[in-house]
Amino acid sequence: MKKKQMKLGVFLMGTGHHIASWRHHEVPSDASENIEFFKRIAKKAEAGKLDMLFLSDGLSFHDLSHPAELVRFEPLTLLGALTTVTDNIGLVATASTTYNEPFHLARKFSSLDHLSGGRAAWNIVTSYYESEASNFNKDKHLDHSLRYDRADEFVEVVKGLWDSWDEDALMRNKETGEYFTKGKLHTLNHRGKYYAVRGPLNSSRPPQGYPVLVQAGSSEAGTNLAAKTADVIFTAQSTLEDAQAFYKKLKAKAVAYGRSAADIKIMPGVSVYVAETEKAAREKYEGLQQLITPEIGLDFLADYLAFDLSSYDLDGPLPKNIPPTNGNRSRQQLIIELAERESLTIRELYMRIAGSRGHRIIFGSPSQIADQLQEWIDREAADGFNLMPPYFPDSFTDFIDLVIPELQRRKIFRTEYESRTLRGNLGLKPVVSRYQKDNQFV
Amino acid sequence: MKKKQMKLGVFLMGTGHHIASWRHHEVPSDASENIEFFKRIAKKAEAGKLDMLFLSDGLSFHDLSHPAELVRFEPLTLLGALTTVTDNIGLVATASTTYNEPFHLARKFSSLDHLSGGRAAWNIVTSYYESEASNFNKDKHLDHSLRYDRADEFVEVVKGLWDSWDEDALMRNKETGEYFTKGKLHTLNHRGKYYAVRGPLNSSRPPQGYPVLVQAGSSEAGTNLAAKTADVIFTAQSTLEDAQAFYKKLKAKAVAYGRSAADIKIMPGVSVYVAETEKAAREKYEGLQQLITPEIGLDFLADYLAFDLSSYDLDGPLPKNIPPTNGNRSRQQLIIELAERESLTIRELYMRIAGSRGHRIIFGSPSQIADQLQEWIDREAADGFNLMPPYFPDSFTDFIDLVIPELQRRKIFRTEYESRTLRGNLGLKPVVSRYQKDNQFV
Repeated sequence: MKKKQMKLGVFLMGTGHHIASWRHHEVPSDASENIEFFKRIAKKAEAGKLDMLFLSDGLSFHDLSHPAELVRFEPLTLLGALTTVTDNIGLVATASTTYNEPFHLARKFSSLDHLSGGRAAWNIVTSYYESEASNFNKDKHLDHSLRYDRADEFVEVVKGLWDSWDEDALMRNKETGEYFTKGKLHTLNHRGKYYAVRGPLNSSRPPQGYPVLVQAGSSEAGTNLAAKTADVIFTAQSTLEDAQAFYKKLKAKAVAYGRSAADIKIMPGVSVYVAETEKAAREKYEGLQQLITPEIGLDFLADYLAFDLSSYDLDGPLPKNIPPTNGNRSRQQLIIELAERESLTIRELYMRIAGSRGHRIIFGSPSQIADQLQEWIDREAADGFNLMPPYFPDSFTDFIDLVIPELQRRKIFRTEYESRTLRGNLGLKPVVSRYQKDNQFV
Repeated sequence: MKKKQMKLGVFLMGTGHHIASWRHHEVPSDASENIEFFKRIAKKAEAGKLDMLFLSDGLSFHDLSHPAELVRFEPLTLLGALTTVTDNIGLVATASTTYNEPFHLARKFSSLDHLSGGRAAWNIVTSYYESEASNFNKDKHLDHSLRYDRADEFVEVVKGLWDSWDEDALMRNKETGEYFTKGKLHTLNHRGKYYAVRGPLNSSRPPQGYPVLVQAGSSEAGTNLAAKTADVIFTAQSTLEDAQAFYKKLKAKAVAYGRSAADIKIMPGVSVYVAETEKAAREKYEGLQQLITPEIGLDFLADYLAFDLSSYDLDGPLPKNIPPTNGNRSRQQLIIELAERESLTIRELYMRIAGSRGHRIIFGSPSQIADQLQEWIDREAADGFNLMPPYFPDSFTDFIDLVIPELQRRKIFRTEYESRTLRGNLGLKPVVSRYQKDNQFV
């Protein structure tokens, strides 16, 4: 029997996932606005046969952010550029349902899917920084549950717009002068609780039917939306047990929504430090850790906890009175739980997570890394991983050059792309238009 | 004395500017969603040393549209893709102020400017199709004057966001851990009549300072906005006298706004049919004209006039009772005036303009074409032209291969790019940040 294949994405966070990566002497510190950097990484990822490039996003300047997020390319224009220098790898852009219009996003992702020949994916977020509201004519950020309620309808509208044109609607008959078949064009006429969108879309059916949908929320509302709509789930899990519980819960939820467990691919983030020996790998980590100043560490915690700890003893515990954020509540909770579970001081806490940012960190030789990744696949904790390279380009090129061949040797990762589309490479079913589905019963 | 240099853009309308171009046997009828087509044209344009690629846009499906506008790439993702296959040519995307947020557009154009190394331009439109409103939660399209009033503020907000970061704000000092200089980051805090946008932008200062601003409105409100803010004005002018009057008026308006006449480049559209002989050029035109059916012609007039003429005699005059549109009123007026001035029947009218779509058409040998272009430059009717190739790729490659060398021989068009930025090639002054301007008086 063929072994279960691992799916792999890479999280393209400018200088690298580690909060102090930009200070590393080998890292191009302007990476987040350097197209030559992104081209190089994209080509390397494709040489390693990875499934996808993943771009996070935010809609405000936020001075507590990871430095690589202070200024950066807008994901869809950047991925547009990367379509022409890659052939097979998936292109995932994050975009918020809270500060966008469904028509614009449906169109942009359809356009990216056409440009790339079926490699586009949308990471659906609802925005979690209060500061975003003030850039969009709003005095206050919308409440968490309202954001998810709107997101649910938003995604339905986007899917409806992607179904506007049947696949064979545009026949462009030069002889008769008929450009398209009227009966194969569908007007959505959506009038819902939050959105009124007439359609149809001025973009033909995306090559993948629908671009791949990615979701990363861990809250109840977030996992419901994910289980209902997402093809890929990106999540932060630091222990095998938590990851197994999350995996089981999300697959069960998907089944409860009438989907098959195989329809959603669960891909936790993982920061990998690999070298010839485990000792050398740990030294790379320690080198980065030394670049974290208390100021960087406290800013980082202030961001994730939405709470300023600068008046507290660095070597004392986290205070008990941290109020729930209206931002990324599940991430805040994960961090508080981690500090409690392991009785960490504030300094220990930021040193622990400023590198991983809530994600799993693993160290070792190529074989040790492969063991740790494979274990999560074999024990139903993951269908694959979103790699969060600690610093670019070296920790990423090390992974491609050292770990990928080991995974391939074990026959748990591809040696060649199976498909030209991301949906095909992920092993997802083709998306059938709602109008074709209706026809099946005629 | 060096002769005045002509500026040249090319209007990338999928299959070509002529309404029936897609039916031409040499035209790829799916051009508007074919990235290989766009890459080929972009490279050819750059080989011809053109200033810019120009993409129009619309935010709805509109069944009376030019077929190449029914489905098409979204301009910013497409131009993102073209940044990597070109080095010098400017990239102009149309985007509407009526159905966008200033933060999004400021960011996307800044991103495109960074991706391209200073070649981005924004063609500012206010949307003119009623159908767009219904895709964006609106029951009714905004009134023409309100759209322009909002556009005026929108553009000011976008400029303010582009000034967020001083050019040298991000020093990324690895030794000290200082990523940027706080005093060189500026928060806009805009609270105006229509927009509240706090800023700053999460994109550093665009390489051009501001991407080039293009405007195409011909109404009083449109020309005011253009004279106040635009670097380039795209306009439809069919006679030398009209073009001279428009040129004089716009330059005077710019001066009235405290700008110099050289600060705005006026570039009328022109559809060129060139061949070895004038006769052969006219035959190309006639070949395309024969592809216009009455149905195509009437749809076309219904679109431009916002009035259905199908119950009128094709060989009679235009009726007198056509009401002013809430859409593109200046274009409607141009067409009604043309019909009156030359006493055209409905059939003659659509045959006349379905090819040119309100723009000038010229025919001839390379030398005759150069004469006609040069006349408008010499007689102060234009600073350059936006080429509207009747059908792609042939009528465009003919222009590059036959006309460009003739213009170069006459020393009125460049043989090499002067600059890596669009602003530099257009001969426009660098944009100084508002905060630097303030400093000049300190």
